[in-house]
Amino acid sequence: MSDLDQIITDYDLWYLNLPVVSSRDHGIGRVDGSCELIILRLRAEGGAEGFGEASPWSVFTGSPEASYAALDRYIRPHVVSRRVSDRASIMADALKAVAHCTEAKAALETALFDLEGRITSRPVHSLLGGKHRDTIPLSVSLADPDWSKDRALLDRLHDEGVRIVKLKTGFGEQAFDLMRLEELRQDFPEFSVRVDYNQGLASETALEHVREVAEFRPDFIEQPVVHWDYETMAEIREAIDVPLLADESVFGPEDLARASREGICDGVSVKIMKSGGLSRAKETAEQAARNGLTAYGGDMFEAGLAHLAGTHMIAATAEITLGCEFYQARYFLHEDILEEAFPCDGGVVTVPDGPGLGARPSIDKLNHYSRSEARAA
Amino acid sequence: MSDLDQIITDYDLWYLNLPVVSSRDHGIGRVDGSCELIILRLRAEGGAEGFGEASPWSVFTGSPEASYAALDRYIRPHVVSRRVSDRASIMADALKAVAHCTEAKAALETALFDLEGRITSRPVHSLLGGKHRDTIPLSVSLADPDWSKDRALLDRLHDEGVRIVKLKTGFGEQAFDLMRLEELRQDFPEFSVRVDYNQGLASETALEHVREVAEFRPDFIEQPVVHWDYETMAEIREAIDVPLLADESVFGPEDLARASREGICDGVSVKIMKSGGLSRAKETAEQAARNGLTAYGGDMFEAGLAHLAGTHMIAATAEITLGCEFYQARYFLHEDILEEAFPCDGGVVTVPDGPGLGARPSIDKLNHYSRSEARAA
Repeated sequence: MSDLDQIITDYDLWYLNLPVVSSRDHGIGRVDGSCELIILRLRAEGGAEGFGEASPWSVFTGSPEASYAALDRYIRPHVVSRRVSDRASIMADALKAVAHCTEAKAALETALFDLEGRITSRPVHSLLGGKHRDTIPLSVSLADPDWSKDRALLDRLHDEGVRIVKLKTGFGEQAFDLMRLEELRQDFPEFSVRVDYNQGLASETALEHVREVAEFRPDFIEQPVVHWDYETMAEIREAIDVPLLADESVFGPEDLARASREGICDGVSVKIMKSGGLSRAKETAEQAARNGLTAYGGDMFEAGLAHLAGTHMIAATAEITLGCEFYQARYFLHEDILEEAFPCDGGVVTVPDGPGLGARPSIDKLNHYSRSEARAA
Repeated sequence: MSDLDQIITDYDLWYLNLPVVSSRDHGIGRVDGSCELIILRLRAEGGAEGFGEASPWSVFTGSPEASYAALDRYIRPHVVSRRVSDRASIMADALKAVAHCTEAKAALETALFDLEGRITSRPVHSLLGGKHRDTIPLSVSLADPDWSKDRALLDRLHDEGVRIVKLKTGFGEQAFDLMRLEELRQDFPEFSVRVDYNQGLASETALEHVREVAEFRPDFIEQPVVHWDYETMAEIREAIDVPLLADESVFGPEDLARASREGICDGVSVKIMKSGGLSRAKETAEQAARNGLTAYGGDMFEAGLAHLAGTHMIAATAEITLGCEFYQARYFLHEDILEEAFPCDGGVVTVPDGPGLGARPSIDKLNHYSRSEARAA
């Protein structure tokens, strides 16, 4: 029997509430108090384990309750008693088992890759086709409604070597956005600046807002209007000479094809929580490049386990050239769940080369932050 | 104070498991054993009540767990303490409060309309703009993997005056579909026949299957391939001379605009559970008509309360000319939840003219079929 013929015997879930250190405002909603995540642990008959994280955002991809139910009830029967080597076929089944819940599907594929990597002593980026880079530039988002707190964060980021920030705009007044951009350019000239609206603008008035912001020459401006409004996205892209990026408008390869055809963006945010897994995220980025679009590695409000999955995906995806945003484990969560710190320092994320994801969550922390009813036995 | 200035004071939920009388196979999944529905009851300070139903299908619109969480946690704060007259603004907030969960939003708008209708003594169809029809032709779906059971059902339908059936295809062999179509044409010539694949065909081979089925000249053929595959939908539409209808490909007005532009269908299935409410369902049908598309009133696996909401919506929407499918309360559920039977007889649904929805669920039945943890106090 090949090692990968092992049967998956155990399937455990944790529903976590992770306290955060600051508030974050975005066009489509606010995050305050805590992040709610679902952790999946698979175990094969030989005893090897694989972990995956679902990081839902209720206003964007769906609720944590939906993610939990997807993993607990709808996806579980397609996994338990299957072979580790059935990964692709398990994922095809999971994709159809329940509508939406892309975060749950990302957690599943992460755990399957981690498990396979542990058994074969290969890092996940190798299972995904091989490593294209050793480090990934880190972008940190500025989204605190209290700008003085973000200014303090900027000082810290500067000291720690971070040189890319993304300003979250469109949740307050235009004047607030312009003031922050002005101070960023004047007081923090070392930073490369990106702008992200998270769908925050009304379609009718979006262009005039975006035009003023474009004068600050950010690297790009992201998702100014509601996800389905491809027409306004295409109009804005035509009208400004700063690259326009799509986030909520492009979840996976299916949207990418159409987004490219309709010319709604110059680049795309690739996230495993949107695409429903690492393979589909990689495919989205590859398809973007074939259509002349750039890509960066975005994320949701994640802990280090999801960051790791994204890191391996980006490491194995040459087409993601604009860095990553895996800052939450270090800069947003009160405490991360990994046994060791997520490998992010000096303004870059370092790609792990150990088996599987290269790190694992602490079971003590999982149990500590877990809702009692969803704690694995 | 106007009657509609009353504050909404109570917001109660039931999570129901309703036993069903038969199995149903569809391209995207099977329903067996029971339907899981969420019922919402609103109460205004004057004591008037309004009810709404969310009828999720996990492989299509989302899971019942997701619907329940949407109503219980994410939508509730936008409703309680608001005025009855705030309906449109409450709905705008609910639309953004959580991603997907269109069934939960449909339940909310149903309950708000019912409440407003009870208070003003007006039927919901009147609140929606006025009644265009008194009865709606009923289509009953044939989806039992055991064809002999559907043949027995056909005899019953015939006796009861039903003259439209929809054959669910693509979940088994092509030969099974053709055999059933042949027997339908030979042994039940009085019936008008529709065909629905529920995305059951592979895109590469869909056309050859559909071509053979089109030779039986059904009224229309519905959603042969996966929802996002607009290209294959458009190709099939080009290639056959039977009308092609879109269901999973068109949830609401946003999809309709694109579906029409890309020529993927000749008509569309309009469902409040897809559009996220009665107003948006009506808007979808109106937009369809403006683009030269026909529309029929579809549904999910619903109880009579959701049927009532759909009935009022169709009554008020001239553009829905192909009848409705509100057969589950009578032909699929072991027992419906309404106090009186859903008004469906002689092959038509009769539009109620009483205040609100014109009927209400039995609280005894709600409590009887409710999961204990989700029973209203």
